[in-house]
Amino acid sequence: MQTMGLSRLVLVAPQRFPDADADAMAAGANAILDAARVVPSLDEALAGASLAIGFSARPREFAGSVLPVRPAMQEALRYAASGDVALVFGTEMSGLSNAELSRCQIVATIPAVPDFGSLNLAAAVQVAAYELRVESHGDRVWTAPAFEPATQEEIERLFDQGERALIAIDFLRPAHPKRLLPRLRRLFSRARLEKEEVNILRGILARIEERVQNGWRK
Amino acid sequence: MQTMGLSRLVLVAPQRFPDADADAMAAGANAILDAARVVPSLDEALAGASLAIGFSARPREFAGSVLPVRPAMQEALRYAASGDVALVFGTEMSGLSNAELSRCQIVATIPAVPDFGSLNLAAAVQVAAYELRVESHGDRVWTAPAFEPATQEEIERLFDQGERALIAIDFLRPAHPKRLLPRLRRLFSRARLEKEEVNILRGILARIEERVQNGWRK
Repeated sequence: MQTMGLSRLVLVAPQRFPDADADAMAAGANAILDAARVVPSLDEALAGASLAIGFSARPREFAGSVLPVRPAMQEALRYAASGDVALVFGTEMSGLSNAELSRCQIVATIPAVPDFGSLNLAAAVQVAAYELRVESHGDRVWTAPAFEPATQEEIERLFDQGERALIAIDFLRPAHPKRLLPRLRRLFSRARLEKEEVNILRGILARIEERVQNGWRK
Repeated sequence: MQTMGLSRLVLVAPQRFPDADADAMAAGANAILDAARVVPSLDEALAGASLAIGFSARPREFAGSVLPVRPAMQEALRYAASGDVALVFGTEMSGLSNAELSRCQIVATIPAVPDFGSLNLAAAVQVAAYELRVESHGDRVWTAPAFEPATQEEIERLFDQGERALIAIDFLRPAHPKRLLPRLRRLFSRARLEKEEVNILRGILARIEERVQNGWRK
């Protein structure tokens, strides 16, 4: 929850709470456990919510609106603009009862292999929290450090020099060029060369040309 | 992995394997553990893969192509059409080393709250496997049992009867209808009525009209 930006945990009639095992597993996110609200019934937990979304892996006869978790979390965000939204999860062993699920306007379900049972509780919560995060904040993440990309002109000069070097070492025969240059062009185009890399490659090529001129020729 | 349809687990130099704790936590997915391949090095694990995608929560200076997990898994599926794709996860404590990450063509990262640390290993694997599943199989899930939807004609007959009943109980005054009927129409339109529900509602309305005729009138 904390990693995904969620903070409000409500526990309905927990067997034990606070609990040393829970504290140990929280691994730095104890603030959420410390602030958790404990209530005796689901009704009390949902009292202030304007939308309740229950999670279930199993088909239920009287389930109202059933959505995959992604559109369900999109719906959650639309409602969150004007009121509180509750994501409702059942116990590890048996999930939500039909009575509990009937308090939810939407039933969310996580795509999975049919007939293989369901995710465990932590995994289901993780997927839901992740979808909420992506939906609310986009999937912008850290990116690689920005190295300056090479310009087209720099790249063309590299290709020119490369062609000369390949001819110098007798690898490219201008009379029978075959598809060598287009293949190399495709490779380096895909790599989206950076300035620094162009300089490195041109340095290598310059050294090759130099060695050829100094009698390295066959 | 099993719930999300993945089956090939490769363990690189595990501290203990097989392991009774792992068997216990597999909870029915022991087939994956039983078939796990154990190798001494990451190179050996990746030998047959045509694309390796490493997971990291932290920025790395020499990370190549960095993608959020969703587009990274889309890329994985494109490659999977023509070769094996490896998803590479580091240890619970420290993730992948720079050397390990440099063997990966793509670095995938899971959107999260900045600066709050990272998901635990199981949570990260769950998100990746979930994204693969949704991307490969769509997010089709079980839906509510198909109750037959009401036809427009049935719904209009319901509205007609409802209007009559509302007039009969003096709630709707035809001279000053205000916006009552459009509001009710909006409500029931949103609910997408089923045949059975129309029948129930018409039964209630019929009972009201009957009571009014039998002297219930004010």
